[in-house]
Amino acid sequence: MPAAAKLENLLHSEIPLSQAMGIRVASYDGRCLRLAAPLAPNINHKLTAFGGSLYSLAVLCGWGLLHLKLAEAGLHRHIVIQESSIRYLRPVNGKMLAECCADEAELSRFFQVLEKHGRARIALDAVIQYEGQAAVEFSGRYVVHG
Amino acid sequence: MPAAAKLENLLHSEIPLSQAMGIRVASYDGRCLRLAAPLAPNINHKLTAFGGSLYSLAVLCGWGLLHLKLAEAGLHRHIVIQESSIRYLRPVNGKMLAECCADEAELSRFFQVLEKHGRARIALDAVIQYEGQAAVEFSGRYVVHG
Repeated sequence: MPAAAKLENLLHSEIPLSQAMGIRVASYDGRCLRLAAPLAPNINHKLTAFGGSLYSLAVLCGWGLLHLKLAEAGLHRHIVIQESSIRYLRPVNGKMLAECCADEAELSRFFQVLEKHGRARIALDAVIQYEGQAAVEFSGRYVVHG
Repeated sequence: MPAAAKLENLLHSEIPLSQAMGIRVASYDGRCLRLAAPLAPNINHKLTAFGGSLYSLAVLCGWGLLHLKLAEAGLHRHIVIQESSIRYLRPVNGKMLAECCADEAELSRFFQVLEKHGRARIALDAVIQYEGQAAVEFSGRYVVHG
């Protein structure tokens, strides 16, 4: 099973809310992970995407990318979100699509620290695009330990 | 129907994910709103509360408090989350309980700006307690307009 399909199964089985939200893995090219979710289960009182759903999609995009990068290195570690910030720039009136890309230099530093100390932090940004423009900007700091 | 029960109905009908999360209004004393949610629908791979669920509970606690304060002033306005940050201090292994309290001076300033300009921003903090300690600290900036 390709890594992207495995990740989708993992999300749905281990985080049931991701299934309630209808989250799918849209693509993974080895550097960028894109997660999608339909509007209907994530709608709010203004008939746009609920801020908590946008946050959840973004935080899982970073979590998923880190999970894939660790799996590629043969590592199965705990990944925990430590802190994050999010800016809502414009409403999302349709399908949500989040993207999180790995910075090779940052990843390399992260793996060095992880190997040496058994624990490392990494900052990952995710963007949710809507109609060709950034609608949501997310920055998260994740901790990985054995 | 008391304000707290009305708010719970509103959340469930307008934000379906809040129903999927099992969010309930735990209490409202005119100054502090407390929202609760069970662990089961919000669990993650580490058998603790999912970071996206904790965020959603906190952001809705601020939203709900502002909704109640506006309703008490006879106002029905749009409330939108503009930006926020969240820190996860310790895992939540059971029922989630978020609390957001109004600062009277800040609320008074907010209502003055809203009356004058038809639009105003307010910063609201929420805390999720677990076993008597702060487990999650959330700060949100909300915009209210006509």
